[in-house]
Amino acid sequence: MEAIEKGGVTSPKGYKAAGIHAGLKKKKKDLALLVSDTPAVAAGVFTRNVVAAAPVLYCKEVLKAPHVRGLVVNSGNANACTGDQGLENARAMGAAAAAAVGAEPEEMLVSSTGVIGYQLPMDKIRAGISAAAEQLSAGHGHDAAKAIMTTDTFSKEIAVRFPLGEATVTVGGMSKGSGMIHPNMATMLCFVTTDCAIGKECLQGMVSDITDRTFNMITVDGDTSTNDMLLVLANGQAENPEITGPADEGYAAFYDALYLVCRHLAIEIARDGEGATKLVTVQVSGAASLADARIAAKSVCSSNLVKTAVFGEDANWGRILAAVGYSGISFDPYGVDIAISSAAGSIQVALRGTGIGFSEEEALKILKEKEITFEIRLSEGSASATAWCCDFSYDYVKINASYRS
Amino acid sequence: MEAIEKGGVTSPKGYKAAGIHAGLKKKKKDLALLVSDTPAVAAGVFTRNVVAAAPVLYCKEVLKAPHVRGLVVNSGNANACTGDQGLENARAMGAAAAAAVGAEPEEMLVSSTGVIGYQLPMDKIRAGISAAAEQLSAGHGHDAAKAIMTTDTFSKEIAVRFPLGEATVTVGGMSKGSGMIHPNMATMLCFVTTDCAIGKECLQGMVSDITDRTFNMITVDGDTSTNDMLLVLANGQAENPEITGPADEGYAAFYDALYLVCRHLAIEIARDGEGATKLVTVQVSGAASLADARIAAKSVCSSNLVKTAVFGEDANWGRILAAVGYSGISFDPYGVDIAISSAAGSIQVALRGTGIGFSEEEALKILKEKEITFEIRLSEGSASATAWCCDFSYDYVKINASYRS
Repeated sequence: MEAIEKGGVTSPKGYKAAGIHAGLKKKKKDLALLVSDTPAVAAGVFTRNVVAAAPVLYCKEVLKAPHVRGLVVNSGNANACTGDQGLENARAMGAAAAAAVGAEPEEMLVSSTGVIGYQLPMDKIRAGISAAAEQLSAGHGHDAAKAIMTTDTFSKEIAVRFPLGEATVTVGGMSKGSGMIHPNMATMLCFVTTDCAIGKECLQGMVSDITDRTFNMITVDGDTSTNDMLLVLANGQAENPEITGPADEGYAAFYDALYLVCRHLAIEIARDGEGATKLVTVQVSGAASLADARIAAKSVCSSNLVKTAVFGEDANWGRILAAVGYSGISFDPYGVDIAISSAAGSIQVALRGTGIGFSEEEALKILKEKEITFEIRLSEGSASATAWCCDFSYDYVKINASYRS
Repeated sequence: MEAIEKGGVTSPKGYKAAGIHAGLKKKKKDLALLVSDTPAVAAGVFTRNVVAAAPVLYCKEVLKAPHVRGLVVNSGNANACTGDQGLENARAMGAAAAAAVGAEPEEMLVSSTGVIGYQLPMDKIRAGISAAAEQLSAGHGHDAAKAIMTTDTFSKEIAVRFPLGEATVTVGGMSKGSGMIHPNMATMLCFVTTDCAIGKECLQGMVSDITDRTFNMITVDGDTSTNDMLLVLANGQAENPEITGPADEGYAAFYDALYLVCRHLAIEIARDGEGATKLVTVQVSGAASLADARIAAKSVCSSNLVKTAVFGEDANWGRILAAVGYSGISFDPYGVDIAISSAAGSIQVALRGTGIGFSEEEALKILKEKEITFEIRLSEGSASATAWCCDFSYDYVKINASYRS
């Protein structure tokens, strides 16, 4: 597996992208177009929020077809809680993008992110799509990644490639997300492209499984968005023999590549959480089951008290243990060991559920780093899981007290 | 039903209390003693956190006996995650209190609140209990309420009385709680006294039911504490005919009195949430079931995004609807109406799941008040529920980034 420097959604063969300013935001780019030269199979996972946004509903329809040609995304307006008019607008946005790139009306996926409850300004959307279509280029993947940002402070992109027989397969992706991030399906926007030849069902299975290991293991604020989606497009231009199941050559290698891309994009979202000053990795081991390990790791990641303590660089391990305690899994509280580590070292803070004397000075040195890991060992079995979150700072409150204004 | 001015746990007949400084905190009162002159039946609910503190484990033992004599509470140290030594200390604390007030060793309930993971300083506890026993008085209920506070900014007390046949029954209570507050059993400390004559089983049934309507419907930060407990003592000194079930005279009146006391103490905890600037009441109606209504109301109360918007006085109703959407209940998102109200007026912000044009100026005027209500009407049935929370401010982060230091 090889990382591609400055790679993104246009790194695989046969993809073009554009990112432009359509006028939904004051100045920043707010509309992205991504197109495959040839039909691509597509797979997706979507928010489990009952209040699903119009583009989520529309994408589920589009994915019923065997192929798509690409997608159009706007930021600045979520097209959520917008009723029938919102769904009509999502459909019209897809059709406008299809017309602009020479595809059939229902071949373009549609995604929106931004404030909830306002109708899309369709005139700006249509004009923006025309402008973006003129900018389409294999060199504009980075522009697209910029255009899907909301409160993000940096764009999230990656691409990797690996040999598959005589072919070289590339997987690229971009994501956005900073607030309203909580594991329940995709909980953000993420778009992945590949030139791998792979069957639609096989791709969908992989995407669902990998989502549970990556995007569903991050949280910023415990709020599951109305607009979350992960979409993966595969256009087959690498010309490898098609992968249709686990027995096929390249299945494992492609799974690994897709996993690496998704994990990277998920971690970058946690790192860029609203107001974040630190990235926190929570590793739970010794759990009775994979489900228990995931629940415990996510519970710690979701605790406001754990996250404010990380912001304060305070080794308040009792809050970590309390968060495992209320997670809903059953375990022996006197069988839990907790360690805190970072690039500055590692320190054991609790053994068998009880505090041990540790150097507060040493703990502070470890917690001063930008990337912190909590290792939580239970005594129930051998299952493990990892979750990621950020700390909880004054700036989260500041950003969200005035998001609409 | 009549409220007693400045009433509290010593308002019912036959109770004495004290609150003193034992030295667990730097200056403030940190040890409370509450004693009934005569044996009292007792009922309780406790945290569901698997990591239950030592006093929680000890109280469950004590409650197996038919009667208790009172309770001893310290603040400044939670005696949680303290292993076998912690349980021994809880037992010794109870025995010391019993000796000081002339009760049997296992007749005193024990409660602790404060930082997790440190052993109690038993010398200070023992000396404090002796000092408190000397201060015991029917006039010192307010001192006891002060002594159980941690990050609370005011003490929480109430008492009500009502006639029952020829008797007058009084119910008094005190509670504390400001952070690590999230509905799952009691989620704070609350102690209620009454002179009502009532059977132990009947009392326990009422307490569990009322907890689900009051303490389990408040949240401050989504973190369920290791130490939460609600304890109710009834010493029968009102000399009413004993209440043993719903058919008995006074059952409904006593239920109402206990409900009023618990609701008041629960709401006061939400109002005094760490960093709180506003009290938020969330009313859900039209739900398919009581369980659904409660889940939806609590989900809105638990949303960091809703709570930061309230702090910012921003009528961001999309976040309210999103929080109902991810709560886990099923409902028609296009059947939801949302209104925001306060002493300054009321404004409809969404109808049938879609935003309606409303005056931002009017909304701001409503949101500037200290007590805000969200009314959320679903179209699924006729069940309703109310939950309470506070807003989410910079000060929550400040308080919790440096709690141990």
